[in-house]
Amino acid sequence: MSQPVLIDGQWRPSKSSGTFRAYRPASGDMLPAEFPVSTWEDCDAMLTAANNAFAEILELPAEHLAKFLEKYAKAIEANKTILVDIAHEETGLPKSPRLAEVELPRTTMQLRLAAQAAREETWRQAVIDSKAGLRSCYAPIGPVAVFGPNNFPFAFGSISGGDFAAAIAAGNPVIAKANSSHPETTQRLAELADEALRHAELPAATVQMIYRTAHEDGRRLVSDSRLGATGYTGSRSAGLDLKAAADAHGTPIYLELSSVNPVVILDGVLKDRLDEVVNEFVTSGLMGTGQFCTNPGLLLLIRGERTERFVQAVVEKYRQAPVGTLLSQGVARTLSESISLLQSAGAKLLAGTEPVARAGFCHANTVMRVSGKEFLAKPQVLQTEAFGNAVLIVVADDLAQSVKVLQHLEGNLTGSIYSDRDGADDVAYDKLVRVLRTKVGRLLDDRMPTGVAVSPAMNHGGPYPATGHPGFTAVGIPAAMTRFAVLQCYDNVRPYRLPTYLQDENPNGRMWRCIDGDWTLGNVE
Amino acid sequence: MSQPVLIDGQWRPSKSSGTFRAYRPASGDMLPAEFPVSTWEDCDAMLTAANNAFAEILELPAEHLAKFLEKYAKAIEANKTILVDIAHEETGLPKSPRLAEVELPRTTMQLRLAAQAAREETWRQAVIDSKAGLRSCYAPIGPVAVFGPNNFPFAFGSISGGDFAAAIAAGNPVIAKANSSHPETTQRLAELADEALRHAELPAATVQMIYRTAHEDGRRLVSDSRLGATGYTGSRSAGLDLKAAADAHGTPIYLELSSVNPVVILDGVLKDRLDEVVNEFVTSGLMGTGQFCTNPGLLLLIRGERTERFVQAVVEKYRQAPVGTLLSQGVARTLSESISLLQSAGAKLLAGTEPVARAGFCHANTVMRVSGKEFLAKPQVLQTEAFGNAVLIVVADDLAQSVKVLQHLEGNLTGSIYSDRDGADDVAYDKLVRVLRTKVGRLLDDRMPTGVAVSPAMNHGGPYPATGHPGFTAVGIPAAMTRFAVLQCYDNVRPYRLPTYLQDENPNGRMWRCIDGDWTLGNVE
Repeated sequence: MSQPVLIDGQWRPSKSSGTFRAYRPASGDMLPAEFPVSTWEDCDAMLTAANNAFAEILELPAEHLAKFLEKYAKAIEANKTILVDIAHEETGLPKSPRLAEVELPRTTMQLRLAAQAAREETWRQAVIDSKAGLRSCYAPIGPVAVFGPNNFPFAFGSISGGDFAAAIAAGNPVIAKANSSHPETTQRLAELADEALRHAELPAATVQMIYRTAHEDGRRLVSDSRLGATGYTGSRSAGLDLKAAADAHGTPIYLELSSVNPVVILDGVLKDRLDEVVNEFVTSGLMGTGQFCTNPGLLLLIRGERTERFVQAVVEKYRQAPVGTLLSQGVARTLSESISLLQSAGAKLLAGTEPVARAGFCHANTVMRVSGKEFLAKPQVLQTEAFGNAVLIVVADDLAQSVKVLQHLEGNLTGSIYSDRDGADDVAYDKLVRVLRTKVGRLLDDRMPTGVAVSPAMNHGGPYPATGHPGFTAVGIPAAMTRFAVLQCYDNVRPYRLPTYLQDENPNGRMWRCIDGDWTLGNVE
Repeated sequence: MSQPVLIDGQWRPSKSSGTFRAYRPASGDMLPAEFPVSTWEDCDAMLTAANNAFAEILELPAEHLAKFLEKYAKAIEANKTILVDIAHEETGLPKSPRLAEVELPRTTMQLRLAAQAAREETWRQAVIDSKAGLRSCYAPIGPVAVFGPNNFPFAFGSISGGDFAAAIAAGNPVIAKANSSHPETTQRLAELADEALRHAELPAATVQMIYRTAHEDGRRLVSDSRLGATGYTGSRSAGLDLKAAADAHGTPIYLELSSVNPVVILDGVLKDRLDEVVNEFVTSGLMGTGQFCTNPGLLLLIRGERTERFVQAVVEKYRQAPVGTLLSQGVARTLSESISLLQSAGAKLLAGTEPVARAGFCHANTVMRVSGKEFLAKPQVLQTEAFGNAVLIVVADDLAQSVKVLQHLEGNLTGSIYSDRDGADDVAYDKLVRVLRTKVGRLLDDRMPTGVAVSPAMNHGGPYPATGHPGFTAVGIPAAMTRFAVLQCYDNVRPYRLPTYLQDENPNGRMWRCIDGDWTLGNVE
């Protein structure tokens, strides 16, 4: 008997075409629970229910959304131990501090920030032209399908993470597709969400969840007329496949895909603080066994007197560091294949050949190296993401060649430059940053990219193919909410018919609106 | 000898595959000048030049962009007579008031508003989190290809209209593709733009222009890696063709396509002011011979005691009104085909069978009618846009049926509801507006949709397939500029390296920024 799915407020048997089981990555064993692979019948039922729920939510005050998000956050905290246990079992991620003290609190914080944003309504970016009788703002886009990634079962989870929180806070029902590597974690979260919904005066189909579909049904789901938009975080191939389907139907889809997150380390900084930078890099590169969207996967150095010392230090640290668990057999296989691909294009293996003496899904900590010249001969292949505990070091001959290397990069989520404190690297910085700035969503000075703060000023996005559109961020409330919104204008609409947030009086005293050119918390005069 | 193209600051012979000539729509004659059909070689040269220009513009203060836009606006005004003459000849649009007193001043106003927005920089929507060391804002996306429509040679023209102004003001070079129906107008404007550029300290390739390409090269252009984005206004078929190409390469494309702009007229309003509404509708419906993106192409009425009087009055006015000139042979042919298609699906012709006793491209003013039941039997075909002086009146049996008609509509730019002043229509309004609101970008009360004010609160956009993305507007500065922008975050970047608009001090005292949650003209404290 496979596990039930959550459709229209009911935990019911899936109309499934088969079942699957998750793994315990730390040991490589299969877990006992069987989860259904939903057919189109499940998707169709969810779409209809979500569409009806959407119409209902449009009539309700945002307070209902906020209350739901807060109750849900509280329920997640109350069930912390069990959630952490299950997520640890399904992902191999350490319970502490990672799951219990970092990811779970981040998740509940996001839900609470989303609640606050829903209540405050500044996210709508209301623009009022009182003379012309025109009032515009963002409004919810309709049911949102969320495909969560394997690497953050809570904070990017399809029924608990950033996309979920942003979509709900903007007033959209969510159709969550669990990541197949942690179905039980998602199921527990869905139970808590469903329970919280029952006390929040929202339609039962505000939150629905299935575990898996055939690829064909996924494509059909993201391009269905009843769907408003899709949020997807995961592999490039599956993401682009869904994008093609959604694009053909004109339905917005927001992707957060692969990224090698180049880090440039200039020579001056190695003079001042080589050991410090080695430590920062190794910590960032191996954090979560390198399974972060913002993992630094490409280090760029310009050959100098300290280059070899730096490389050697990194290699030693990678060799000595304990080998972490990978999230799935698929991640281990893809990592191994990507490393082989990079090697076939000329990357030399400096660390990572050692056999790993431990059970479960894993791969030796890997350091590869190419020259700038070699990189420029095969730039496409050599920027293949090796998702996991692997890094490629590119050593350019000189500044000009390092600029060329950056010019050949695709779009990335982040790019970092380490430079010295006394200005010796400034000329190089200026030349490099002009190129790097156009290639990345977030530019960092003197810092590794793995920390992605939940801030209104964050951009967790970037040029294609790091994402599907360079104008949006997947992290940061309220900015991430506009992905799941449409622009709506009211022209000459009678005052009593306007939604509260566009009427003359500020609806709550805390909603920022742009009235006749000025941003204000005040009323239309 | 065909006319030269403007590439990289040079008026030079096109590498062309052939030539074409425009028509004088008022007479149907061909005009003498020959214009080249550019090959990929022209496109390739423009892309390279635009890409280099983009890198240069990034280093210049926005003041250069503002000065250019203002000088260009001035030059357009100085050349008003000749521009109006040529545009009139190529489009058949009346010189006065349409071209000289309405469209040209709107065009120069847009350019000046864009200049002001470039200078002020509020369009960047800077968000600063001073504690987290994160600062984000919009930045230019790169060279923008603009495909202008046939119906507004100035105000939506590829080298003078809203997309052009928005793209330039945001710091992007423009590659303009003239509309083939008014190449000489575009050429004249390009000369003025080029001349203005020379006095504005901007790269010569900031503005480039060709007249036409093969469809294949158009697809290649919008999906080239050197291009940042595309703005397209025109027919659905050509637009969706370009969208497919751009989407496959992950390059943003913003479309403004067809729309029937439903207008619902409730019974109460006919009781109070039938003649007034008939006049408003006929004026709006036949304005510019119906060749507006926001032309009211579908009237929805609920059968009542005044319905027949209303329909009859519209039919009479349409019969009596002078028949205007259509923009091209293509528009005349498509209009005729669309009317036939609507008829084949059950629409009855009430006006429009009369032979038209005049020269040039034209079609009799056309009124068609179907019942709500007939509409619901073939909703897809019966909402085909008949671009031009034609309208379909749908008479529903009752409120419930009229709601169903709206439910079957695709995405539209606008939707209007006329209701009486004393509340008798309010129940019907409430039921209808819930559906209509989700189908349109701009909702109007008691007003026809043809007026599109240039206001920051305007939304000239809407759900697919009226546009390619429901979150953006094509009219309104600065809102329209974010289409041609990417989101960029600076994380821990040293203060002196930040762009001026993200530094602690407000760069000009007029740029609104969101600092630590509050919108302000002040500095970071």
